[in-house]
Amino acid sequence: MQSLMMDVPLQIKTLLWRAERLYGHKEIIARTGDAFDAFTFTELGRRARKLSNVLAGLGVTFGDRVGTLAWNTAEHLVAYYAVPCMGAVLHTVNTRLSDDQIAYTIAHAGDTVLLVSSDQLPLLARLTGRLADVRTVVVLDGEAPADVELGVPVLAYTDLMAEASDEYDYPDLDENTAASMCYSSGTTGDPKGVVYSHRSTVLHALGLCTTGTIGVSEKERYLLVTPLSHVNSWGMPFACVLQGATIILPGDHPVGADYLKVIEDAAPTVLVGAVTVGMLIRRALEEHPGDYDVSSLHTMWLGGQAPPVVEMKWWKQAHGIHITQAWGMTEASPVLTFSGLTSTNQDLDEDARFEIFSTQGQPLPLVEIKLVREDESEAPWDGKTPGEVLVRAPWVISEYYNDPRSAGSFSDGWFRTGDIATMTQDGYLTIVDRAKDLIKSGGEWISSVELENALIAHPKVIEASVVGAPDPKWIERPVAFVVLSDTVSPDELKLFLKKRFPSFWVPDRFEVITELPKTSVGKFDKKRLRNEYV
Amino acid sequence: MQSLMMDVPLQIKTLLWRAERLYGHKEIIARTGDAFDAFTFTELGRRARKLSNVLAGLGVTFGDRVGTLAWNTAEHLVAYYAVPCMGAVLHTVNTRLSDDQIAYTIAHAGDTVLLVSSDQLPLLARLTGRLADVRTVVVLDGEAPADVELGVPVLAYTDLMAEASDEYDYPDLDENTAASMCYSSGTTGDPKGVVYSHRSTVLHALGLCTTGTIGVSEKERYLLVTPLSHVNSWGMPFACVLQGATIILPGDHPVGADYLKVIEDAAPTVLVGAVTVGMLIRRALEEHPGDYDVSSLHTMWLGGQAPPVVEMKWWKQAHGIHITQAWGMTEASPVLTFSGLTSTNQDLDEDARFEIFSTQGQPLPLVEIKLVREDESEAPWDGKTPGEVLVRAPWVISEYYNDPRSAGSFSDGWFRTGDIATMTQDGYLTIVDRAKDLIKSGGEWISSVELENALIAHPKVIEASVVGAPDPKWIERPVAFVVLSDTVSPDELKLFLKKRFPSFWVPDRFEVITELPKTSVGKFDKKRLRNEYV
Repeated sequence: MQSLMMDVPLQIKTLLWRAERLYGHKEIIARTGDAFDAFTFTELGRRARKLSNVLAGLGVTFGDRVGTLAWNTAEHLVAYYAVPCMGAVLHTVNTRLSDDQIAYTIAHAGDTVLLVSSDQLPLLARLTGRLADVRTVVVLDGEAPADVELGVPVLAYTDLMAEASDEYDYPDLDENTAASMCYSSGTTGDPKGVVYSHRSTVLHALGLCTTGTIGVSEKERYLLVTPLSHVNSWGMPFACVLQGATIILPGDHPVGADYLKVIEDAAPTVLVGAVTVGMLIRRALEEHPGDYDVSSLHTMWLGGQAPPVVEMKWWKQAHGIHITQAWGMTEASPVLTFSGLTSTNQDLDEDARFEIFSTQGQPLPLVEIKLVREDESEAPWDGKTPGEVLVRAPWVISEYYNDPRSAGSFSDGWFRTGDIATMTQDGYLTIVDRAKDLIKSGGEWISSVELENALIAHPKVIEASVVGAPDPKWIERPVAFVVLSDTVSPDELKLFLKKRFPSFWVPDRFEVITELPKTSVGKFDKKRLRNEYV
Repeated sequence: MQSLMMDVPLQIKTLLWRAERLYGHKEIIARTGDAFDAFTFTELGRRARKLSNVLAGLGVTFGDRVGTLAWNTAEHLVAYYAVPCMGAVLHTVNTRLSDDQIAYTIAHAGDTVLLVSSDQLPLLARLTGRLADVRTVVVLDGEAPADVELGVPVLAYTDLMAEASDEYDYPDLDENTAASMCYSSGTTGDPKGVVYSHRSTVLHALGLCTTGTIGVSEKERYLLVTPLSHVNSWGMPFACVLQGATIILPGDHPVGADYLKVIEDAAPTVLVGAVTVGMLIRRALEEHPGDYDVSSLHTMWLGGQAPPVVEMKWWKQAHGIHITQAWGMTEASPVLTFSGLTSTNQDLDEDARFEIFSTQGQPLPLVEIKLVREDESEAPWDGKTPGEVLVRAPWVISEYYNDPRSAGSFSDGWFRTGDIATMTQDGYLTIVDRAKDLIKSGGEWISSVELENALIAHPKVIEASVVGAPDPKWIERPVAFVVLSDTVSPDELKLFLKKRFPSFWVPDRFEVITELPKTSVGKFDKKRLRNEYV
């Protein structure tokens, strides 16, 4: 028997409708250098419809991909609504990838128009001739420069917007229509494309607005440090608009002191960003004691990797700020679990509460999780038996975009995360081991396997193994162990890798040893390397 | 371009999965006479699977309707999961309808099995021969009575459950599969059937769990007074299970003192019930001052009609309890708007805050609203222009079940609620009348709701209802029916109203009666007032 309920699609324009109709006077506050561009949700809707008209004028139609290479700016946020609401697909290019990877993702996604910060033009100039389907570049800030030759027209956003109509009747879309794209980095080979739908975006946003998660609320002011250029800034631009919550954006090239200035001037109550950003802000605070007022903040959601408990405790003790965390991945929109207290554990003493906060938390509504052992049997939720985490949710991918590597990531309708975890009896997840051989530095994955393969390709390197070493600033940095056939300097090896990888991938330390330790089956024994050398 | 997200259906079994896996130890506390049946969410899952096996054994298959005639008991709640999760459809029969209406709904829905409280057996005996497709009756409490002859087998729930397996592998369902049914009452003619889907049920539950609405939370304890036999107890049994929130059920035949006893013993933090129940509890409290402890409660969500502001103030002042309200209807699962403060109005003084609380609030996430005038033009959201409320949401019906009367209720994909309201600029809705309860006098509209609210604020008026009576000169004139606590003259009431309204609004006639007639769902029955008195 079928339902007799309305077939109303879950779509991003409904979020915008809500913000405009209920919270039209509420604000988005975007840092622009030393000043702020503050504008209302009414204005967000107006700018979105103008940009949709601009894009339509540039030939963008249903299903076309529009790429962005941009910071957390007002213009980037406007694109979050302008592009999907017209039925096109927002591809947020991760600007921290290497030139080759960026060229690959733009070509692979088939971007037709690029919306770029002016500081990305030199990058695009380096990629001239490799921009594939791109036929127009729009510079989001300032004039279109006369001296840049990209082989395609370069236009100024402000000029285009000035002439555009602010009327655009957004169509009703099938909720499974693609809304945005992002490329997952850090696995071997080329980045893999992930395509989010209107449905997945709306459901993920609702998940973030439910009590027991970050619980996005109209009453809070969210500083979104986590990049708009990666995994939809953890879905916060959608959840905040749904709820009419104040959005604060740190603008371009923010450094530690900029964050502190934004916090002082725009008074966010919740900061959302990478663990490394939290550490950066802490250092800036410690270097300038008493110079900045962070008292507006009550919570920081720090992600990308688990925030260390010592950091959590420092923030609580020094500033009364609660650090919360989630777990997820590009393939999952990204949030799967959220760390918080329940009625059962909220009255524990402080140390026991920090134990809870140090887990990755419980699954969000609609997220199902299971742990499987190596033999594929299901591991119990007993707080100690590890297993690979398999997940199922309406905001998890079913396959990578046009990618034959999809097959290995799924089992019987579940996505294999590659993370190893334990679950307590009440569903608190703790990641105990990362996907094999990956290093997480500053919130970004670095593949040790790829670095090793590259090093071994050097004529003077016989063997190479790369492991993660603890680092005060980046949590973890790669260290390379090499067996050489002839003398070669670390600088030469660094230069050798820099040609192939983003600079942050390049190890800071190179240790020359006579032989790499091996396991009984002849694999490089990374555990011993870590224990004995790092 | 299509999404590459998992096609994971929104289904009720996912809510149960979550409660069992994350909150297995949390409790449902059901009053059974003077005692309580307290059982865990783990046990809820176990009982649900047992009942599914029982029903399968009675021949219930995919799409079959299973009717309930029952109170807010543990067994009724178990059916909320057992029936939809196996792909069958739960028809909660509204036991407060007339015999004829009950016979009509059971036949119209095509119920094959009825799950009934033993006190409903005399009713069924009166309907012998009119039970249509019913082939088995299961008595939820106690033995199957030997002396009842219904023409179909009458079996005992406890006997059937004792023998049933607690293993049942619930199938993945298309999310548009029908999950439950309810009949809308209070309109002319036969009741109209509404069919809820798994999708609409899950989305509505998520809506109730978002911040800014009732915000169902794992940390609260919900006393569900609103009947499980009508509109899924406002969706709370689904939202509470999704969040692992403690559910407290008042059991069979509760009276005012029973509610107070349950509050004292089971310590709910939030009570959910009809406005009339709030008034019942208030009277019981006033009659037994100091006898009952209601200090566990911080909020009462009172619905069915707008709670009078004087009631809200009494609860706040006497017990520190916040009264909140929503607006909706059977056709909308039922919640469409929820009353609450935002960052913009939370710092107003107390009287101004009560003004906000006296509205029906703002639309829930995913609910779209528009107001239309009689000429179908859209009315502005200016806080004063009334219009009929049209709604669109994934949990609103697209048609009534097998009913030719559907056509008149829809316009261009929107559901016509028949309610007349104003909307403020920030989307606060105030119902000014039912379309058919508006009084048109001398060509001018008079709002019966506003007159009623004003009358109830008079210290000697307990209840008031205003209806239109034919008038030779003005076509229609308002007549007020009042229940008084003390003598008061019509002239005094007229004077009282004249201070607030245009003189033509003031009723010419005041009828003092001992009790206002109520509909099956506890609303004032204006149809009966009109028919019997006017």
